[in-house]
Amino acid sequence: MPASRNSPEEQEGVRVKSALIQLSPEFGKVSDNLQHALGLMRTVKSQLYVLPELFNTGYTFGDRSELLRTAEDAQRGPTYEAMLEFARQRNAYVVYGFAEREGAHFYNAANTVGPQGLIGTYRKMHLFGREKLFFTPGGNPAPVYNLPIGRIGVMICFDWYFPETARSLALRGAQLIAHPANLVLPHCPNAMMVRSLENRVFSLTCDRVGIERNGDVMHRFIGTSQAIGPRGEILVRMDPELPEARVLDLNLELADNKQLGPFNDLFEDRRPELYDEFPLKHMVAV
Amino acid sequence: MPASRNSPEEQEGVRVKSALIQLSPEFGKVSDNLQHALGLMRTVKSQLYVLPELFNTGYTFGDRSELLRTAEDAQRGPTYEAMLEFARQRNAYVVYGFAEREGAHFYNAANTVGPQGLIGTYRKMHLFGREKLFFTPGGNPAPVYNLPIGRIGVMICFDWYFPETARSLALRGAQLIAHPANLVLPHCPNAMMVRSLENRVFSLTCDRVGIERNGDVMHRFIGTSQAIGPRGEILVRMDPELPEARVLDLNLELADNKQLGPFNDLFEDRRPELYDEFPLKHMVAV
Repeated sequence: MPASRNSPEEQEGVRVKSALIQLSPEFGKVSDNLQHALGLMRTVKSQLYVLPELFNTGYTFGDRSELLRTAEDAQRGPTYEAMLEFARQRNAYVVYGFAEREGAHFYNAANTVGPQGLIGTYRKMHLFGREKLFFTPGGNPAPVYNLPIGRIGVMICFDWYFPETARSLALRGAQLIAHPANLVLPHCPNAMMVRSLENRVFSLTCDRVGIERNGDVMHRFIGTSQAIGPRGEILVRMDPELPEARVLDLNLELADNKQLGPFNDLFEDRRPELYDEFPLKHMVAV
Repeated sequence: MPASRNSPEEQEGVRVKSALIQLSPEFGKVSDNLQHALGLMRTVKSQLYVLPELFNTGYTFGDRSELLRTAEDAQRGPTYEAMLEFARQRNAYVVYGFAEREGAHFYNAANTVGPQGLIGTYRKMHLFGREKLFFTPGGNPAPVYNLPIGRIGVMICFDWYFPETARSLALRGAQLIAHPANLVLPHCPNAMMVRSLENRVFSLTCDRVGIERNGDVMHRFIGTSQAIGPRGEILVRMDPELPEARVLDLNLELADNKQLGPFNDLFEDRRPELYDEFPLKHMVAV
């Protein structure tokens, strides 16, 4: 029986153990949040661990002084040190969202850390809502890391709303999109099924749960962290309210096959020369 | 109460009556299919009528001789003449999918016809499956027509799979995407909710129903034609098996507001300079 007839679980190919670590941070309590995360991470044996956006600080910043107190350098500070140690002990990769400080700037960032150290830092390019009051938007494309476990792309939360983000990760070779998130809108889980479907990639959206208040500002996070397969199928969808660790065996090579039936290839069939963005050239006035 | 608190139906603004004409064509019977379509179109009073892809010929071509017999010039032949007459009688616009012949080439095309004549012809740029055996892919961007009723973009069926198509229509000003389709995959109806959501546009996906066989080839069409609002909401979703005409009152101006909460604008927040497509520049090898 040809491999393409089998379900993803039955297919041949190297499997990568990939974990979603859904958390419930308390705002501003970096040390506690870090310990809770490590406690949950230790419950699953995996090669890749994806954590939520801003997992160590919480989300609902009220002023810059709270960031001054909790943000860390990408490659220095208790969060980085602890994640590096974990990655070395487990010979694993960890993608985690944190508040990055560089000079006078704060970034809503995601580090990818492996046994060899920091692989890279991605600074969120599409800031959502009040994040714009405190964070500087990133100035580099979302990254694709060519790791021994596979080609891992990283984007953060609201980046999902812009189809270009996941598209550009997939076109640059990502087999899996690690997607730390703090979701407050209801649409992301179903939309990420489309992001995986249209790009034929795995996606791991790792959200947080709980309610945060800071002054007049309240956020309720929807949890529902999920792993989506390259055909847009839900591999796991987690609880809306409870922290939880889940691990999956993923055959990332399935994401290399962009063929849709005998006649179509989702990437070769693209017509980039026809994807105009500017109104004057092709809008037809009647 | 500010307008933004109201549901779309309650908002102020000019309404455009827009109709979905879900059909059940019989393969190769152009004259019958045309009459059935007109019969159903006459049951609703609308300013815009959207019909399925290849509504007059059927879908399951087995060889070019069947196209030679049924394809028509974009601006000549019984289908165009009948649609023009209908548009004039009703003072309305009609978007319909048909098999176009130009010289030695056949196109899977969609005409937009109004009281003033042919507005434009769009030739499907992403051909699906066996369509590649018979049709030439279109060589122009999907069009946006600036009509008296609003700015109408047109794409055909499988174009939905490529997020760039709807994106480029919206960026060029489309308020509503008219989307003739012959759906055989199950994903399109939910994916079009994301296309409308991410672009803040209306979309009218008009599908056909029924089963077609031609030799060894069989297609089962899923119906489920739908209108989606600019917040990704289902305005109407039709039967999977029955032909039907449905008309909606749409306030197309809602699609001009790309604001998402007080801090975000879905178009101004884009970062096109960061949407790299090429692997060598930014993939990080470890």
